[in-house]
Amino acid sequence: MSRIELLDSCLRDGAQAEGISFSINDKLAIVEVLDNLGIPLVEAGNPGSNPKDLEFFREAAKLSLKSARLCAFGSTRRKGVEAKDDPNLASMLTAGTDTVVIFGKSWDFHVTEVIRTTLEENLAMIADTVAYFRSKGKRVIYDAEHFYDGFKANRDYALKTLAAAADAGADCLALCDTNGGSMLPFIMEATAAAKKAAGAVAIGMHAHNDSGLAVANSLEAVNLGALHVQGTFIGFGERCGNANLSTIIPNLQLKMGHDCIPAEALIELTASARAIAEIANMALPDELPYVGRKAFAHKAGMHVDGVLKHTTSFEHIPPHSVGNERRVLLSEVAGRSSILEKIKKIDPTIERDSPVVADVLTSLKELEQEGYQFEGAEGSFDLLVRKALGKYKPLFKLERFRIIGERPAQDEGSQAMIKIVVDGQTELTAAEGDGPVNALDRALRKALERFYPSLKQMRLTDFKVRVLDGSDATAAKVRVLIESTDGKDIWTTVGVSTDIIEASWKALVDSVEYKLIREIGSKFGIFA
Amino acid sequence: MSRIELLDSCLRDGAQAEGISFSINDKLAIVEVLDNLGIPLVEAGNPGSNPKDLEFFREAAKLSLKSARLCAFGSTRRKGVEAKDDPNLASMLTAGTDTVVIFGKSWDFHVTEVIRTTLEENLAMIADTVAYFRSKGKRVIYDAEHFYDGFKANRDYALKTLAAAADAGADCLALCDTNGGSMLPFIMEATAAAKKAAGAVAIGMHAHNDSGLAVANSLEAVNLGALHVQGTFIGFGERCGNANLSTIIPNLQLKMGHDCIPAEALIELTASARAIAEIANMALPDELPYVGRKAFAHKAGMHVDGVLKHTTSFEHIPPHSVGNERRVLLSEVAGRSSILEKIKKIDPTIERDSPVVADVLTSLKELEQEGYQFEGAEGSFDLLVRKALGKYKPLFKLERFRIIGERPAQDEGSQAMIKIVVDGQTELTAAEGDGPVNALDRALRKALERFYPSLKQMRLTDFKVRVLDGSDATAAKVRVLIESTDGKDIWTTVGVSTDIIEASWKALVDSVEYKLIREIGSKFGIFA
Repeated sequence: MSRIELLDSCLRDGAQAEGISFSINDKLAIVEVLDNLGIPLVEAGNPGSNPKDLEFFREAAKLSLKSARLCAFGSTRRKGVEAKDDPNLASMLTAGTDTVVIFGKSWDFHVTEVIRTTLEENLAMIADTVAYFRSKGKRVIYDAEHFYDGFKANRDYALKTLAAAADAGADCLALCDTNGGSMLPFIMEATAAAKKAAGAVAIGMHAHNDSGLAVANSLEAVNLGALHVQGTFIGFGERCGNANLSTIIPNLQLKMGHDCIPAEALIELTASARAIAEIANMALPDELPYVGRKAFAHKAGMHVDGVLKHTTSFEHIPPHSVGNERRVLLSEVAGRSSILEKIKKIDPTIERDSPVVADVLTSLKELEQEGYQFEGAEGSFDLLVRKALGKYKPLFKLERFRIIGERPAQDEGSQAMIKIVVDGQTELTAAEGDGPVNALDRALRKALERFYPSLKQMRLTDFKVRVLDGSDATAAKVRVLIESTDGKDIWTTVGVSTDIIEASWKALVDSVEYKLIREIGSKFGIFA
Repeated sequence: MSRIELLDSCLRDGAQAEGISFSINDKLAIVEVLDNLGIPLVEAGNPGSNPKDLEFFREAAKLSLKSARLCAFGSTRRKGVEAKDDPNLASMLTAGTDTVVIFGKSWDFHVTEVIRTTLEENLAMIADTVAYFRSKGKRVIYDAEHFYDGFKANRDYALKTLAAAADAGADCLALCDTNGGSMLPFIMEATAAAKKAAGAVAIGMHAHNDSGLAVANSLEAVNLGALHVQGTFIGFGERCGNANLSTIIPNLQLKMGHDCIPAEALIELTASARAIAEIANMALPDELPYVGRKAFAHKAGMHVDGVLKHTTSFEHIPPHSVGNERRVLLSEVAGRSSILEKIKKIDPTIERDSPVVADVLTSLKELEQEGYQFEGAEGSFDLLVRKALGKYKPLFKLERFRIIGERPAQDEGSQAMIKIVVDGQTELTAAEGDGPVNALDRALRKALERFYPSLKQMRLTDFKVRVLDGSDATAAKVRVLIESTDGKDIWTTVGVSTDIIEASWKALVDSVEYKLIREIGSKFGIFA
């Protein structure tokens, strides 16, 4: 049971992921999320590498952080140059961090073939650089790049690079599986050898997921005595990504009994993962262990019965311990008990044999027959239940909409005109968009915002189309799933029709109504 | 170096994943992909559980498979009933498979609290069921459900359940980490104990990914002597999914020296993963080890230089060994041979170093960057190659189309007007349809039939829509795949746009042109 130090590299290695591009404000927001969670080290870039990084460090210094400390990151000194004369090292100091992370070469092949110097000079580059930052009073983490590939190629030399850093005063030696290709038994052998070579200096792990083993390799390094683990909070990084800290943290803390973030912060895990995904403008993978939307979703009837009888029966941890929630999915195989569980969230007084349960089941079956699927469309299911319970009132009436698309396109390609009525007041408006659904979405919200200003916070984050029966091709039924957020909650709604416009319309209306009914339901006397 | 038997459970455990719902044709198509790859066992459902499964087994029996064998899947007999009188066991026999997979309880808690019988009766249920299927000449794989949780709770009893199956004649004992919550050192301890208890009977592994360890746990089970690994090909399954075979296969085969699929099939790995994702209408995660689009993508300038100097420098395996490709900013030679093979189908005189191969590669890369994917869109790829070869001429010119949809709907809901020109002759027409794409499809073919009467034989048979990047929701790019037939041939075409109407239009045009160009190309002097 040890204290394991975590280093998050979202802002540095994570920024290497395809499709990731952070503004300074994005970076600051991520630092705050990680700090709130109690992650001790946050690796950022080198302020000398570009002006944006310099500005980031300046702005970050103004944050009042509880626990997180920023680390500047850079390579060992250049070959043939004294450390004090290397402008990259000097620029790292301008970041003003207590801790610096220095990466150097541990694979002889990289020394001779990529940076093209002698093995001896590389050892000197490591030692000089570490000693330089120690002389400036910095805590130094030495990242042994390609340590595992290096150990495979020339184990003596790989271990010598560690010794060079340790002898020069490094506080921690992070062993990197840079290409992510190492198998676990080899990781264990090399890590044990490194631990021995490091002596009293702490060792750490920096794993990549190219073989699907980044989490396992990190945990087994801890089992061998590593006290420091590097990764990115939701796993993004180059190629297949870095070791995912949102998986590693609960494994270390709940399963292995180690201590890495404050116990009370663990329930922030899921919300933190969603927040970072939002900031990075990427979809959080639904299947992600612990924090994914599906991580505690149960579909099969048998399993649902099992879970409801005894939650440990099909759940490895209580979902709320990481701030996630159990989701009982509604599907053809779902029975009365899973429906009841959902209904009780809206009205806890409803009992198993209440007629409303049978009504909801009947509606569900009819709608599933039409092609609806409510698993993963809780927003629409919530509205369905409210309708059955009499806790629903339409929030607007559609008079008419018309969408037009043409090629060659004028302006944005599609236009939508819409006319709605709210409380006897008519609103007629129009919008353009990329395609008819986008135009219709914009027109609907534009028309409603006058009556319901909170819709301004709402936006659509995902849109899925499933053709239900391909054999009728373009006349087949389509099911549209829309995911929306208002920054706090995420909800999904569904619509089905042979016309994609109509299916999208149904899902859009549900999405808006789901938000508004929970928010202002009481005003309309919808809640009992 | 052993022969490791793989069992794919896409059709059974995979179908438990949220959002997955397979038609019979989808299931048959997946069986063919897995067969083509050389996966030996494909687990499907129980034909007795619903009529769709029964029909699936009937249709699947008509496939001519090279190597894959289907397995029926079901539980042990009910408590207090003789195996021969249990209708579920009888119905499993109707599937007509050589191999059956029987799951039973290995966790005492589940025996007493979930199925509510005695520990002795559960052992009898396991033994009777295995013996029953053995007496019917079936090979029996026994899935020890919750084996690891059971071993933790009551190791003697968990091992007794394995012995019950082994003594009754089971051919393989698959140890299930059903909740996916076990850490690796414990998995290793329990697996070693199971291996000892199993004696001469093979053991296997069935892992779930709730702790991010499904791949690692499977590989370490193999290191301890397991000869059978269960998973789903691209990892989908309940909650966080099953062990991902597309990761496990190359780890076993390229890294650990085991034998699981034919060596020459390994280059089909990436295409197979994409095909299964397409059939399941889910996005293949870009970060997936080995088969993901980003698995060999290099962004960092330093890394790209490294890769270009020495590919092993930042790549753990050669991407082409699993049919994937390196993606860098600069145009690259990877993929040339597979492209050449396709080009030779249209013009056998083209050689590897012909400029047209480079032209096609460049166009392909540009289009893939836009979101196109030509796997399973051979019609569009054929047209792309013909364009590069100068063997293409547009068969009509679009002057303008306009689609209109409105609610409340008049008539069929959507109308399309179209104006085209063929050989200087203008045709202006209109059609109605269920939704704008259907109306446009009808209008286009109505306008063209006057010039190309053979289009009367053509019809669209499938239509798929994939939203490429959900984060922009209704303004995101969509990829439309259209499958068409003229009764003789079947072909698929693709279109991409932020506007679903335009994406559909591109796929529709390709579909019509693909048919006509092969048919009447010679009339236009398009063929050399």
